[in-house]
Amino acid sequence: MTISISRPISLKDVHITDDFWSSYIRLVREVVVPYQWEALNDRVEGAAPSHAMKNFKIAAGLETGEFYGMVFQDSDVSKWLEAVGYLLETGGDPELERLADEVIDIIDKAQQKDGYLNTYFTLKEPDSRWTNLAECHELYCAGHFIEAAIAYYKATGKRKVLDVACRLGDCIDQVFGSGPDKLNGYDGHQEIELALVKLYNVTQEDRYLRLSQFFLDERGKEPSFYEMEYHRRSMKVHFPMLDIVHDRAYSQAHVPIREQQTAEGHAVRAVYMCTGMADVGAATGDAELLEACRRLWKNIVNKRMYITGAIGSMEHGESFSLDYDLPNDTAYAETCASIGLIFFAQRMLQIEPKSEYADVMEQALYNTVISGMSRDGKRFFYVNPLEVWPEAIGKNHNVNHVKAERQGWFGCACCPPNISRLLASLGQYIYNIQGRTVYANLYIGNQATVDIEDQQVKITAESQFPWDGLVRFQIDAEKEIDFTLALRIPSWSKDAKLVVQGETISLLEVCKNGYAYIHRKWQPGDHIELLLPMSVNRMTGHPNVRANIGKVALQRGPLVYCLEEADNGPSLHQVFLERRQENAYEIAFEAELLGGLQTITVPAKRIDSNGWGEHLYRANMETFMKQDTLKFIPYYAWANRGYGEMTVWVKEE
Amino acid sequence: MTISISRPISLKDVHITDDFWSSYIRLVREVVVPYQWEALNDRVEGAAPSHAMKNFKIAAGLETGEFYGMVFQDSDVSKWLEAVGYLLETGGDPELERLADEVIDIIDKAQQKDGYLNTYFTLKEPDSRWTNLAECHELYCAGHFIEAAIAYYKATGKRKVLDVACRLGDCIDQVFGSGPDKLNGYDGHQEIELALVKLYNVTQEDRYLRLSQFFLDERGKEPSFYEMEYHRRSMKVHFPMLDIVHDRAYSQAHVPIREQQTAEGHAVRAVYMCTGMADVGAATGDAELLEACRRLWKNIVNKRMYITGAIGSMEHGESFSLDYDLPNDTAYAETCASIGLIFFAQRMLQIEPKSEYADVMEQALYNTVISGMSRDGKRFFYVNPLEVWPEAIGKNHNVNHVKAERQGWFGCACCPPNISRLLASLGQYIYNIQGRTVYANLYIGNQATVDIEDQQVKITAESQFPWDGLVRFQIDAEKEIDFTLALRIPSWSKDAKLVVQGETISLLEVCKNGYAYIHRKWQPGDHIELLLPMSVNRMTGHPNVRANIGKVALQRGPLVYCLEEADNGPSLHQVFLERRQENAYEIAFEAELLGGLQTITVPAKRIDSNGWGEHLYRANMETFMKQDTLKFIPYYAWANRGYGEMTVWVKEE
Repeated sequence: MTISISRPISLKDVHITDDFWSSYIRLVREVVVPYQWEALNDRVEGAAPSHAMKNFKIAAGLETGEFYGMVFQDSDVSKWLEAVGYLLETGGDPELERLADEVIDIIDKAQQKDGYLNTYFTLKEPDSRWTNLAECHELYCAGHFIEAAIAYYKATGKRKVLDVACRLGDCIDQVFGSGPDKLNGYDGHQEIELALVKLYNVTQEDRYLRLSQFFLDERGKEPSFYEMEYHRRSMKVHFPMLDIVHDRAYSQAHVPIREQQTAEGHAVRAVYMCTGMADVGAATGDAELLEACRRLWKNIVNKRMYITGAIGSMEHGESFSLDYDLPNDTAYAETCASIGLIFFAQRMLQIEPKSEYADVMEQALYNTVISGMSRDGKRFFYVNPLEVWPEAIGKNHNVNHVKAERQGWFGCACCPPNISRLLASLGQYIYNIQGRTVYANLYIGNQATVDIEDQQVKITAESQFPWDGLVRFQIDAEKEIDFTLALRIPSWSKDAKLVVQGETISLLEVCKNGYAYIHRKWQPGDHIELLLPMSVNRMTGHPNVRANIGKVALQRGPLVYCLEEADNGPSLHQVFLERRQENAYEIAFEAELLGGLQTITVPAKRIDSNGWGEHLYRANMETFMKQDTLKFIPYYAWANRGYGEMTVWVKEE
Repeated sequence: MTISISRPISLKDVHITDDFWSSYIRLVREVVVPYQWEALNDRVEGAAPSHAMKNFKIAAGLETGEFYGMVFQDSDVSKWLEAVGYLLETGGDPELERLADEVIDIIDKAQQKDGYLNTYFTLKEPDSRWTNLAECHELYCAGHFIEAAIAYYKATGKRKVLDVACRLGDCIDQVFGSGPDKLNGYDGHQEIELALVKLYNVTQEDRYLRLSQFFLDERGKEPSFYEMEYHRRSMKVHFPMLDIVHDRAYSQAHVPIREQQTAEGHAVRAVYMCTGMADVGAATGDAELLEACRRLWKNIVNKRMYITGAIGSMEHGESFSLDYDLPNDTAYAETCASIGLIFFAQRMLQIEPKSEYADVMEQALYNTVISGMSRDGKRFFYVNPLEVWPEAIGKNHNVNHVKAERQGWFGCACCPPNISRLLASLGQYIYNIQGRTVYANLYIGNQATVDIEDQQVKITAESQFPWDGLVRFQIDAEKEIDFTLALRIPSWSKDAKLVVQGETISLLEVCKNGYAYIHRKWQPGDHIELLLPMSVNRMTGHPNVRANIGKVALQRGPLVYCLEEADNGPSLHQVFLERRQENAYEIAFEAELLGGLQTITVPAKRIDSNGWGEHLYRANMETFMKQDTLKFIPYYAWANRGYGEMTVWVKEE
């Protein structure tokens, strides 16, 4: 049984015009992807060589040498190629396409006769294919390649790369599956599952969908596949510092996925898995699987997610920890994990149009994802903490994974190319369409062309998001057209106002699950104004969240704000917001600040520690406060002005 | 040049009569030391074998077999023997003495012809003596043996064990020292330094003092001794998970000790080193060394010490981290480190009679040290956090070193025997004497006999410490005697009152550096009453301590209090003390509770989370509070009633 789901509009049909996002996407096109190409080819001075392209060339017989790099080095090339696919779909670039074609030729040559594709095993351990699924990322790399192939094929219509992907998919299908003649295993890092559903969607070949479902359902079964293959390979271990084989929750292999009650283990793996589960659930109508998706979703967003849309509370295992455990300073909060959460949210939104999914998508996108990249596209955060005391880094080991400044590129360079591929494909997240209903999920300014059954409709959305909450839509079709436009009403917006062709619509009457459904016979040129007032929201965390008791965070529109030392001096733990100050926020657009952004200025108090003396503890001391003013900037823009303290959550007095 | 210092009264001359401490000391005598003897002999069912006595027997040629255990396993026997020495000095026990004599006979036989004594190297790597000072604890073990030997010799007058110690000291003196024919090195774990000064004090042999000084001064010199010996032994490493050779600050070998500005690295090593520095400084009058002691002391107590007298802010390296970094939940706060801090304080107090040293001694003793042992003497804490959320243990890796319940004994069993030897020798910490001045440092009930020059004086101190602050002294001598009794006025006590023979003395007139000097011609039977009012002190931390901003801790007398789930339910992060409530504390002695203790009950507020719903973050929510009552117990008594939350620092509303 399949269920009825909504689908994104093709990337080529959504043209982003939004100032805020255009500049990010331009960075991806002009800075990040070109830089990454240089990195993949070992031409970045001072950077450790990637060797990723070289590995493919050697495997293709075009060069000689040995494999070098991480066991999953191939995936760097795939993520680059995937981003290139999206960039080509949204704007021709013959030179980039030529480069990509060359890469595809090399990959095609590197593919083995039976369809196998992985330069690590081909070059280094040709007899050990599929012997260490727990640790060696073969299917993970395959998944990334499949995603890249589909993106490139969709952009260019060139089948060559898709053929490589299908041969790879078939090779995997030959090896894995139920029954004694096949390998009943699954990868230590989920990714193949969602990729195979994409391959199924493009090719309509059922076997890819069944294979994805097989991988999902094998995970966590007893006896442990990891354990069995571990003994078969005489207990050889690839990452001796980790304990992937036995710490099964790390890769969500501790119980069968349908029985998992909470999001556990490595956060990126978890959300990639959930994305695949939702994909398979959507394609097969598997109610139990979809219920498991909803359960894990709820656990993440109601108990294990930072206000910035970040996930992963601890560095150990880059993992979830336990419900309501959301320490701000020792957070892992990996950029990739928020990207994965966006994938998961997008799939859930396709299955059921509820604004909560789009809310989280927006929250992760406007905060953690773009916090992951500097304003010049050259430096990146892997870890996105909500509170930083730079002095402690390198001195207290619990925050040693935190950086107070973005880094150039990483040895394990997963986050920067993940940001690239997300931003390059951002158009896919704005609308979904299902039959005669178009859902507007994100208020990114754009011009889109939608096929509503047989008729083409142009939708133009203009906004000054995230600085202003007024969104204007214009609908243009050759003639009158009957369809429903469903507009998401974000949870951060109170008193939203909707005006269709000058007529105010009662949201109470048209809202369902956070979407306002406007069903109408649209005339060419029809206008909608959606006003989402962006007042400053003073956010509090659930009383079970220990780290945030007695604290508040400021949010305006989708943006979570923070205090930085650059604006407020050091010792940010000594500042307090007064309890009631609704009208005291001063909002100002500062065009020269960090690419232009709105700041929030607010009166506050600060501990006056003069006269405390040198004692560490004192009896019956009154705490003296002095009046102060605090200036908040959007979280995404932090750490672009040198080394300093930062905090999202601020004490309340 | 030597300086004039005060000395403790001999242990045999101080008879502790105090209810509170007598019961602890009885536990050591009746439970801990006997249990430890069984453990050392591998007779504890269910516990991992220690093998420590067996190692000595094999090395002595009395049994056959192989070495087993940690490289520093010998020190367990020494710590036992040291505690036995103190117990014998304060109360005869022929059976215990017979056992100890047997052990000494075995150790004597295990000693090598040249005086070398270490069963690990003797049995396992006889050709590798002194090749891995950084990691292998040879001098550390030697130091513990020397301390034990002196304690036993002082108690019994039997020289055999002291002779073994001297031969060992001489062997070390042959090997180590300046010059090309000697090893210019030092141990990775300080301990030999303070032990050699004890040996010098007992034997008056200058070479032991010089050797101690040599070890202190070699530490941290360039080029790194650890590095040199590491290369000499072909880079063999004993503890591959640590990086002792290169992480020189871990063992305070990053710069010469006289140049160290802050207390760094492994906290136990640091305070053992400081103790040795103070000992050598006191014996030699080395002003620069004493200044370094004062600097490190100030750094610890003014910037790196928990309110419970615990030190070591992080599990990584069981180490100090940085100034004012005192996280309550991820603290290491090792019992042994507080014991070491007491040693350091005691030495500083001998050098300069300032109450700040005795204050810290008391703070560590009444809080962290006895928190380290359960009320039945059978279970122990290694780590003494100030805030525990038991659910997080095992789930958030940053608190995995924390236990919510005391453990039976440890693989690396350093803390329990360290508690034993401290408590068994507690009498040494009560008084110091210098010429005709007797300093009373701790108000533990006792009867002491003091030789003031030629005359014997009996001092009786009675108190209900730590429950009541009234201390009565009686002075008895055969005839009138002229001397000064200096009574410490604790920093926790405001409005202390001193009455000598019915006459109230103005503290302002007689106080210096926190001691009240009563100089008088004492008549037999003279009385003093010292009243140290024990009101509840509401303690705040220095504004630079991030973890404690907006929080207070209750202290009464020397006891720091805490909230436990057993009395107050879970979610202790949701409770708030009201800001001003000086008179609202209800103090009650509960005889049936945890061996009898005083509780503090106080009205408070608690977050009412009803109606919050399932959302993790909410905008502009008012936090509702309900009235509540909180019951505090002394920190030392926590975790004796099963698994539950605990916190020392409580938010203030």
